[in-house]
Amino acid sequence: MIKSDIVGVIITPQKIVSVGGGNVLHAMKRDDPGYTSFGEAYFSIVESQAIKAWKRHRKMTLNLVVPVGLIRFIIVDDRNGKAAKPHYQEVILSKDNYNRLSVPPMVWVGFQGLSKGNAMLLNIASIPHDPDESDRKDINEIEFDWSIKK
Amino acid sequence: MIKSDIVGVIITPQKIVSVGGGNVLHAMKRDDPGYTSFGEAYFSIVESQAIKAWKRHRKMTLNLVVPVGLIRFIIVDDRNGKAAKPHYQEVILSKDNYNRLSVPPMVWVGFQGLSKGNAMLLNIASIPHDPDESDRKDINEIEFDWSIKK
Repeated sequence: MIKSDIVGVIITPQKIVSVGGGNVLHAMKRDDPGYTSFGEAYFSIVESQAIKAWKRHRKMTLNLVVPVGLIRFIIVDDRNGKAAKPHYQEVILSKDNYNRLSVPPMVWVGFQGLSKGNAMLLNIASIPHDPDESDRKDINEIEFDWSIKK
Repeated sequence: MIKSDIVGVIITPQKIVSVGGGNVLHAMKRDDPGYTSFGEAYFSIVESQAIKAWKRHRKMTLNLVVPVGLIRFIIVDDRNGKAAKPHYQEVILSKDNYNRLSVPPMVWVGFQGLSKGNAMLLNIASIPHDPDESDRKDINEIEFDWSIKK
């Protein structure tokens, strides 16, 4: 397990098993770090350079893996209140850096497709979708430089 | 829900939600048909025309979605014993025919990549991987014509 500076964020390497005809990529087991309960699983496609930001879940824990393409996730932790400086963490996931990113409730998450083609994440969420437990901010409401350094 | 001739096989249409920057594809909710428990989630990549066959789980229920490419699944039900003729069902899944295929324990499953490039399935399995609860047969041990009709 890789340490994170943001309390509750867990980065767990996942196995890719070599199999004839096509590999098998682990995503999550019920006794894995970050697993609390199964609510829902869904994919989110991220077009090249597209940004989906910002969203905060008040109850849901996210468990994110990226089996297709390259996605960068920005996590912003402002749980210490308005007087404190928010804490930022960047995590870039792909098949070549094949980890699962677990994100606790009450932090802000945005993400961006960094591949030439579409990228895709799987979220194994701890609770089913419920629009009443999430908050949104416009991309400009949280300061972050999304430009891609080449 | 689409009916199947094989008892326990469930085919459930899944929503694709149109979202700017990339769509969201549902895979499974905990109150969905076919869900019994969460054991493990994993991806299986299937190379073009590659065949992975045959495998039977004695305890695991499979819940299969195909977010990338085109995969045909062949389910063979020989639960009525050697005297009876086994029952075959073909299910082809892709983003254009976006259903979840739930497969009960004790039937044989094989699958084949039908896209030009790699295809990928997600299995949301009811129990974690356990080599002792599955059986394998060589591809030739169950009669099926895998040639692709064009």
